[in-house]
Amino acid sequence: MKLSELLGFRFKETPSDCQIASHILMTRGGYIKNVGSGIFSLYPPGKRIAQKIERIIREEMDAIGGQEVLLPVTMPAGLWKESGRWDAVGSELMRMKDRWGSDMVLGMTHEEAVVHLCRGAAQSYQNYPFMVYQIQTKFRDEPRARGGLIRVREFTMKDAYSFHTSQEDLEAYYARCHKAYENIFRRCGIPEVVSVKSDGGMMGGKVAHEFMLVTEVGEDYLAVCDCGFSANMEVAESIIENKAGEDAPLEKVSTPDMTTIEDLCGFFGIAPEQTCKAVLYQKNADDALVVVFLRGDLEVNEVKLRNLLGEEIHPAVLEGGELPCGYLGPVGLKTPKGAIVINDSSLKGARNLVTGANEEGYHFIGFSPERDGTGSKYNDLAKILEGGICPQCGEHSVKLVRGIEVGNIFQLGTKYTKSMEMTYLDQNGKARYPIMGCYGIGVGRLMASVCEVRHDDYGPVWPMAIAPWQVHICAIRAENEEVGAAANALYNVLQNAGIEVLFDDRKVSAGFMFSDADLLGVPVRVIISPKTLARGAFELRTRDKAIQKDIALDDAVDEITALVKERMGEFES
Amino acid sequence: MKLSELLGFRFKETPSDCQIASHILMTRGGYIKNVGSGIFSLYPPGKRIAQKIERIIREEMDAIGGQEVLLPVTMPAGLWKESGRWDAVGSELMRMKDRWGSDMVLGMTHEEAVVHLCRGAAQSYQNYPFMVYQIQTKFRDEPRARGGLIRVREFTMKDAYSFHTSQEDLEAYYARCHKAYENIFRRCGIPEVVSVKSDGGMMGGKVAHEFMLVTEVGEDYLAVCDCGFSANMEVAESIIENKAGEDAPLEKVSTPDMTTIEDLCGFFGIAPEQTCKAVLYQKNADDALVVVFLRGDLEVNEVKLRNLLGEEIHPAVLEGGELPCGYLGPVGLKTPKGAIVINDSSLKGARNLVTGANEEGYHFIGFSPERDGTGSKYNDLAKILEGGICPQCGEHSVKLVRGIEVGNIFQLGTKYTKSMEMTYLDQNGKARYPIMGCYGIGVGRLMASVCEVRHDDYGPVWPMAIAPWQVHICAIRAENEEVGAAANALYNVLQNAGIEVLFDDRKVSAGFMFSDADLLGVPVRVIISPKTLARGAFELRTRDKAIQKDIALDDAVDEITALVKERMGEFES
Repeated sequence: MKLSELLGFRFKETPSDCQIASHILMTRGGYIKNVGSGIFSLYPPGKRIAQKIERIIREEMDAIGGQEVLLPVTMPAGLWKESGRWDAVGSELMRMKDRWGSDMVLGMTHEEAVVHLCRGAAQSYQNYPFMVYQIQTKFRDEPRARGGLIRVREFTMKDAYSFHTSQEDLEAYYARCHKAYENIFRRCGIPEVVSVKSDGGMMGGKVAHEFMLVTEVGEDYLAVCDCGFSANMEVAESIIENKAGEDAPLEKVSTPDMTTIEDLCGFFGIAPEQTCKAVLYQKNADDALVVVFLRGDLEVNEVKLRNLLGEEIHPAVLEGGELPCGYLGPVGLKTPKGAIVINDSSLKGARNLVTGANEEGYHFIGFSPERDGTGSKYNDLAKILEGGICPQCGEHSVKLVRGIEVGNIFQLGTKYTKSMEMTYLDQNGKARYPIMGCYGIGVGRLMASVCEVRHDDYGPVWPMAIAPWQVHICAIRAENEEVGAAANALYNVLQNAGIEVLFDDRKVSAGFMFSDADLLGVPVRVIISPKTLARGAFELRTRDKAIQKDIALDDAVDEITALVKERMGEFES
Repeated sequence: MKLSELLGFRFKETPSDCQIASHILMTRGGYIKNVGSGIFSLYPPGKRIAQKIERIIREEMDAIGGQEVLLPVTMPAGLWKESGRWDAVGSELMRMKDRWGSDMVLGMTHEEAVVHLCRGAAQSYQNYPFMVYQIQTKFRDEPRARGGLIRVREFTMKDAYSFHTSQEDLEAYYARCHKAYENIFRRCGIPEVVSVKSDGGMMGGKVAHEFMLVTEVGEDYLAVCDCGFSANMEVAESIIENKAGEDAPLEKVSTPDMTTIEDLCGFFGIAPEQTCKAVLYQKNADDALVVVFLRGDLEVNEVKLRNLLGEEIHPAVLEGGELPCGYLGPVGLKTPKGAIVINDSSLKGARNLVTGANEEGYHFIGFSPERDGTGSKYNDLAKILEGGICPQCGEHSVKLVRGIEVGNIFQLGTKYTKSMEMTYLDQNGKARYPIMGCYGIGVGRLMASVCEVRHDDYGPVWPMAIAPWQVHICAIRAENEEVGAAANALYNVLQNAGIEVLFDDRKVSAGFMFSDADLLGVPVRVIISPKTLARGAFELRTRDKAIQKDIALDDAVDEITALVKERMGEFES
């Protein structure tokens, strides 16, 4: 394609609403245009990259036996009522009414739709296992759309669903899909993606992994260790060693106006880990109080708490005077009816702490949780800390890093097949619920993620496999007859050889051409000018700056073709 | 792919909610599943056909310089308010509110989104012309979803938009696109599609064509003539010749209780074309009355009336007593303030008609419109009739046939660029509005349309270019070692040769296999059984029954490959 005909425009200034590199460069380079909060159109270069990513995804899904289907963007609410998510999911689910006033939703994931498609179509155990996938538009009414294509409301997603007759079979397939995901990210040019254990979230199910691209612009925190351990902070086990200490007598002391850990530490001259604090939540369903006691230096991991309770919670909003807030402690706590009190594992083995006396203006000192009656049950509810103990190797070696979630896989279990009554008959003619797995990748986020880690100050450095074009010809002073003829000839020969060529045929300066070429990020650039022709050569440059050299006119096509081929395989296993 | 692993199921019974062949056969064959009114999921065979159609469309759009983009399914209402369609379009536009209460819409067409994408990106006349297209999901809240994929609410559509600096340039490109559309339909296996002039409808613009597949299950009526004339009935000119007759004196006669044309014809012993009737409408905007006078044997074409008035209308709903309904006529008509009176061309040159006297119980006889004061303005407002005069050859040779609209193209003009302020600078530095064309094809409807005209009683007969697979192997008694080995070997060799093979490896009867194969409609079938092997052969059958013969084992791969190749080109130009 000739650059003079390409729709879109490129510019130098950083748009004021863009913070991260991929958003800045893909806007400046004419890949994307913002239509509304978290909603984007793709210009031709963006669409070309997306299609290449989709092709790689299709190949890898087909290679593990996936069958491509198409599920609708819009669905009657009835399907989501069957699964229970009409009520369970909040305002991120886009709801609407059609002309007859019927409730409808926009698909944010498609478990309901895929169970609807497959129930009835796989009634014998002999039909299992199978996997179907689609690449389709989804909508999630994100409150915090940001970062260009990193966190959007409308997005193109590959979502796959597998169905099994045993947990073992699901696990075996889950492992194959895990491998296919590694292939996808590697082939798209980001082999550094790591998989971490994660929380199933609103999907339901127990085992889940996220594929994370570690980068400081990521929104998620990962706990990683040199030993190879990695997990989303949401699920990483917090292991706390309490220093061996002496028990001391439990004694109530006056602590007027000391309602924070900081106050107490200052007053008693102790460190925060020598205190025990209370954090209050309420259940969304009935506002019942949930009191979590944990060591004063730690924070509650709400995902863990939600998973323990099996229901949604929010920070407590209490009327004044209900409880002596700021003075709560495990000893003698009187809670309203229906309240739940939970102790974090950090209290296990702790001795001689300061904690609230459940009386305005008083704390206990000398509190030893196990001796003084927190009971014997402790749960892992705290956030893992930088420098904390690695759950895998046991060293104080946990690091917290940020990452972008570029894919996720879930062992869903029978949540959807049960609620939506999808069954098959087993060998004995008995009706059973199939066990599901689901597997997602956002195409646009993957494109932006590659840009995040494959760019320089001047633009993206696209890996060959997903680059919008493979070769970019810059004809400098194309009005020069010789240059024009040589550039056109090369353009035609390369295209006939099956190479995707972008040909800058505009009458603009070399500097203007090169800054556009940098923004378009095509891996191989060929520069043709009166100067290069005078040397009997074209100049070959790679976008990643690894190569900059003259190539003889006669060798040009072979050299370029060979380089494209070599680069196509650069991230193949 | 092995049929034993294919998701979906096939059955014999006609589903009670299916009326037309494509709906019946694509449901029975496991291509589609209904999710809600006018909303379908696609099983793998349906998705495969859709993808092949999309590939053909992409090739033809790319061949005329199209650049693929992606526009969003969801849009802020602001864009549609800019163009004026937020108000102009009725309840077929799906509206919704996001989490912040902002109005949003689901795209039913994407003129707004494409102008948003392109404005700012094509600011010089040198950027023109260009065409962009997308293949994306759309939603139109159809009140009458029916016929499976023929008329749906959610659909995958290719929509293309071209931008020009002159009407001549638009017209030249429009002709190229017209040709590309012919290529698409021919390559998809329905070369019999005809293009007809049509109405621009809610798209705006003057010149428009519909691509129609003539079939009795179509929803549109076309006026066609053996001379080559064809037009949508909505726009076909109605040409009426009034027989030369004598004038007679205008005379008021008593006609008690005679309020219909039928009454009058019986009373006076005349034919309906010897009467002049009134048909009443009201403008949607202000309920102003619109009175159309036309010959009593004709009907008003509301599309023509709407286009003449330039606004929406509806049949009049009048309070009793306002007008002497049933006795209205052009002579002495008193209409309420703001009313419009229009005469159809059929009154021009007519003489000696019976028409209402604008007085309860009385009609005029001897009415000659031109003599008695309808004025000199006549407009073409009547529906064309079967056997009417062809606007092209002038013979009484018009036939009305039904058709499915499989595509449409519009010369939009500057409706959207003006309302949304998209401009470019011309050679003289003057800001101008680009002139647009738009071009649509529904992928699912095209698939169903092919099925409508390419099927027999047993299932679809897919053209090779869009068939879900190219070759279908039926291994009868696959448990027979020889059969199993031969079938597997053929399956592997053909797949390695790049042929798309569906392999029925199930242990079911030949009859069961064949009825499934008929429903899957794969063009080439290879039957392998102990009997054929005893003859040293496979049996080769084409789904269209043109070929049924034995092929020697040694020649099988070559013969099958050659046949597939030949059939791939069957609808190439």
